[in-house]
Amino acid sequence: MPELSHQKQVLSLIGPDLRRMLEEAKDPEQARELLEDFHPEDLADLLHELENEDAAEILRLLPEDLAAPIFERLEEGTQSEIIELLGPKDAADIAAEMAPDERADLLEQLPEDVGDKLLEQLEQVDPQAAAETEHLLRFAEGSAGAIMTTEYLAVGPERTVLEAIALIREKGAEAETIHYLFVTNDNKRLEGVLSLRDVLLAEPVQRISDVMTTRVITVGPETDQEEVARQMSKYDIVAIPVVDKYQTMVGVITADDVMDVLTEEGTEDAQKLGGMDALDASYWETDFLTFIRKRGSWLVVLFIEEFFTGTALRHYDEVLSAVGKLAFYVPLLISTGGNSGSQSATLIIRGMAVGEIKLSDWWRIGVRELGMGLVLGALLATVGVVRVLMWHDGIRIAGVIAITIIGIVTMGCVVGSMLPLLMRRLGFDPATSSTPFIASLVDVLGIIIYFNVAKLLLANVIAEAVRQKAMGH
Amino acid sequence: MPELSHQKQVLSLIGPDLRRMLEEAKDPEQARELLEDFHPEDLADLLHELENEDAAEILRLLPEDLAAPIFERLEEGTQSEIIELLGPKDAADIAAEMAPDERADLLEQLPEDVGDKLLEQLEQVDPQAAAETEHLLRFAEGSAGAIMTTEYLAVGPERTVLEAIALIREKGAEAETIHYLFVTNDNKRLEGVLSLRDVLLAEPVQRISDVMTTRVITVGPETDQEEVARQMSKYDIVAIPVVDKYQTMVGVITADDVMDVLTEEGTEDAQKLGGMDALDASYWETDFLTFIRKRGSWLVVLFIEEFFTGTALRHYDEVLSAVGKLAFYVPLLISTGGNSGSQSATLIIRGMAVGEIKLSDWWRIGVRELGMGLVLGALLATVGVVRVLMWHDGIRIAGVIAITIIGIVTMGCVVGSMLPLLMRRLGFDPATSSTPFIASLVDVLGIIIYFNVAKLLLANVIAEAVRQKAMGH
Repeated sequence: MPELSHQKQVLSLIGPDLRRMLEEAKDPEQARELLEDFHPEDLADLLHELENEDAAEILRLLPEDLAAPIFERLEEGTQSEIIELLGPKDAADIAAEMAPDERADLLEQLPEDVGDKLLEQLEQVDPQAAAETEHLLRFAEGSAGAIMTTEYLAVGPERTVLEAIALIREKGAEAETIHYLFVTNDNKRLEGVLSLRDVLLAEPVQRISDVMTTRVITVGPETDQEEVARQMSKYDIVAIPVVDKYQTMVGVITADDVMDVLTEEGTEDAQKLGGMDALDASYWETDFLTFIRKRGSWLVVLFIEEFFTGTALRHYDEVLSAVGKLAFYVPLLISTGGNSGSQSATLIIRGMAVGEIKLSDWWRIGVRELGMGLVLGALLATVGVVRVLMWHDGIRIAGVIAITIIGIVTMGCVVGSMLPLLMRRLGFDPATSSTPFIASLVDVLGIIIYFNVAKLLLANVIAEAVRQKAMGH
Repeated sequence: MPELSHQKQVLSLIGPDLRRMLEEAKDPEQARELLEDFHPEDLADLLHELENEDAAEILRLLPEDLAAPIFERLEEGTQSEIIELLGPKDAADIAAEMAPDERADLLEQLPEDVGDKLLEQLEQVDPQAAAETEHLLRFAEGSAGAIMTTEYLAVGPERTVLEAIALIREKGAEAETIHYLFVTNDNKRLEGVLSLRDVLLAEPVQRISDVMTTRVITVGPETDQEEVARQMSKYDIVAIPVVDKYQTMVGVITADDVMDVLTEEGTEDAQKLGGMDALDASYWETDFLTFIRKRGSWLVVLFIEEFFTGTALRHYDEVLSAVGKLAFYVPLLISTGGNSGSQSATLIIRGMAVGEIKLSDWWRIGVRELGMGLVLGALLATVGVVRVLMWHDGIRIAGVIAITIIGIVTMGCVVGSMLPLLMRRLGFDPATSSTPFIASLVDVLGIIIYFNVAKLLLANVIAEAVRQKAMGH
C-alpha cells in the first residue's frame, strides 16, 4: 500500500516537470491517468509550490472533475489569481464541478468584476449551479447558510428502504454527504432523518417512515457557524440539516466544514485576545498593509487608553516626588494586575465560547473571582514583601506594596471576569481585544490604588517632604 | 416532528419527577419506553441538574444500553462521583456498554482504587471489554492511541461487496463508525479502505480489492491528537485509521472525537496564552485550590520576573531624579511594547498550531516583523509626540518619547515573534505563558531603551541637575 509520505515524495519529484508532462499528454483523459492516484490535497500543496502561471496551466490541462477538487483546496489568494489567469471560460468549467459551498466561498472573495464575469459564464455552462451559487451568496459570512451545501439526499416518508438504496446508488456520487438521508414531504418540510447505518440495518421492504428517527437536531440558515460547530460537537453528529422557520430543508452542513470552522474560530479568538483584529487569511497570505491596519488600529486605541496612566501619575506627583522609591514599583504592580486580569478574562471568554459559562452566572463568577483574587493577592504580597525588604526600602514601603498587591490582584480578577460578561451583555464580541483593554484599565486603576494606599500609610513622610520642599523654596 | 427545544422543555418538566417515575416502572424495559425518544445528550444535561444521588439512581434503573450513552456524556467530575455511588457491580454493567475509547477515558480519570475495582468487576461481566480497555490505557494522554476506538469494521480484500454489506448489517450496530470499511489481510495489515459510498455504488459481485482505494491516510498510535485533527481537517475525512509501524491496524479515530479535541486544544491554547496552566476540566468543575495552583504558580513566576523592572529603574535613578517627568511615561511605553509583542507572539504561536508557520521560516518572519515594528512604531510615535506637546513637556521630551516608541515597538515585534520560535526549537510548548513572559521581558528591555535614549538626548539637562544637586548638599 503506498503510504502518504511516499506519495508526497513522488509528487515533489515530478512537480517541476508536471506541466510539461501534462502538455505532452494527448488529452485530458491521459492526464487523468497520470494524477488520479494522488490525493487532491497533496496536488494542491504541489501547485502552491509552483508559479501561479504553471498552476493555472496544469488545472486547464486536467479534466474539470479532477481539477475542481484540487482547485477547491488552494488558498484563497491563490484561487483568485488563478481564476484571473484562466479567464472566465475555463474558470467556469472548473467552477461548475466544484461543491456548491466551496463555489460560493470562491465568488465571495473574488473582486466584484471578476466574480460577475465568472457567474455570467457559469450561467451558460451550468445554469443550475449558477442559481445555487447566487442563492448561497445571499447568506451572511459566518452564518450556517454560508457554509452549508445544497447537495444532499432527500427521500419521501412513504418510500421503501429499497427505493432509498436505489436513490443512494443513483445520486450518491454527487451529494457531499451520504451519511444521512433526509426525509422530507412534498413541500420539502423535514420530517425525519435516516442514517446510512439505519438504511443498511433495515429490511429492504420497510417503509422509510417506520425506520426513520424524528429526533432531528437542526439549525437555521442565520445560526452562527460557531453555534453550529458547538451543536455538532455536542451531539456527535457528522452532518446537520439547515431548515428555515417553516421547517423546510434548505441545506446541510458537514463535519469537514465544521472542523475548518473550529480551527478558524480558534485562530480568530486567539488573535483578538492577542490584541488585534482577526485576520481573514493566513500569516503569509496577509499583505503588509493589512497587517499594519489590523494591528495598528488596536495599538493606537490601546496607546491612547494608556495615556490615562500618565494622567494618573501626574495626579500623584506630590506623593511621587516625596517618596521617589515608589516609582520603582509601578511597572511591577501594574503588570501583576494585568496578568491576573488577563487570566480571569481568558477563562471567562473561552468559557463563553464553548458554552460552559452563561451571562446569568455573573454573580457566581464575581464571588468566585473575588475570593480567588484575595488568595492570589495574599500569595504574591508575601513574595513582594520579601523583595522590598531585600531592597532595603523599609517596613513602611513593604506594607504599602503588600496592601496594594492584594488590592490590585483582586481588582484584576474582578474586572477581568466581569468586563467580558458586560461586553457580551452589550452585544459586543467579548474576545475583541479584551485582554489588552482590560490590561490598560487595570493599569490605571492599579496606579490609583497604589498611590492612595501610599498616601494613607505614608502620610507623615509625605507631609514632612512637602514641608521641607516649601521651606527650601 | 418534535423539535429540539420542545424536547428540552418536556425534559425539564419531567426532570424533578424522573426518579420517581422510573421507580414506579415495573422493569428496565418500561423505563426504556419512557426515555428512548430523547437524545442522550439532553438526558445528560438533565442529570447534571439533579443531585448526584438521583442521577446515579436513574442510571441504575435504566437498561444498561440506554444508560451507557447518557453516562458517557456526563462531565468528568460527575462521572467519577456517580461511579462511586453506583458501586463496582452496577458501574461495571454500564461500563461494559460504553464505547471503548470513552470507557478508557473514564478509567483514566477515576481514583486508582476505584478504577481498579471497576476493572476487576468488568473482567467478570465482559472480559473482552476489560482487555480492550487495558490495551487503550497504555497510550499516553493526548496521543492518537488514547482517543481511538478499537471497534471498527474490517473485511478481507478477497471478499465480495455483497459479503461486505452482510458484515455491515451484522456488526454495524456495534462499530463506532461505518462510514469506512477497512480492508485488512489475515495479519491485520491495512491494505486499503472503502467508504460506505463505494460499497453502495459498487456491484454486489465485485471483489473488495477491485473497488477499494489504496490511497489511505493513516496516523500512528503515538501521533499527537492535535496532529490527528489537523490531518483529518486537511484531508476532509471523518474517520482515520491508526496503524503501527508494520501497517497493522490498531484502531480508528472518528470526527466526533476530533471535534472535541479541536475545541479542547483551542481552550488550552487560550489559557496558556492568557498566562496560566491549562485546566483539565471546565471552569465550574475545577476546584478553588486547583485554580490557585494553576494561576498562582504562573503569577509568582511572572511577578519575580517583573522584579527586573525595579532593578532597571533603580539603575537609572540619576536620570529619573534629574528629569522627574520621565516617570510619567513608563507605564505607557512598556505597555505599548507589551501589546506589540503580544500581537506578534499570538500570530506566530497560532500559525505554528495550525501548521502554517514552520521553524525554518524564522528569518523571513524576523525581517517581516522588523519592518512591521518600524512602521507601527512610527505611527504610534506620531500620536505620542502630539500627546507630549499637549502635556507641555517640551520638544526634547517629545523627541525622547518618539525615538523610544519606535525602538520599543520594533523590539516588541521582534522579541514577540522570535521567542515562540525559539521555545519550539528548544522543545517547549510555545503557547505556554508566552505572551505574559514576553511582556515582562519587553518591559525590562523597554526601560533600558527608554533611559538610554533619555541619557543621550537629555545629557545637558541631566548633567545640570546633577551639578545643582551636588551643590545643594
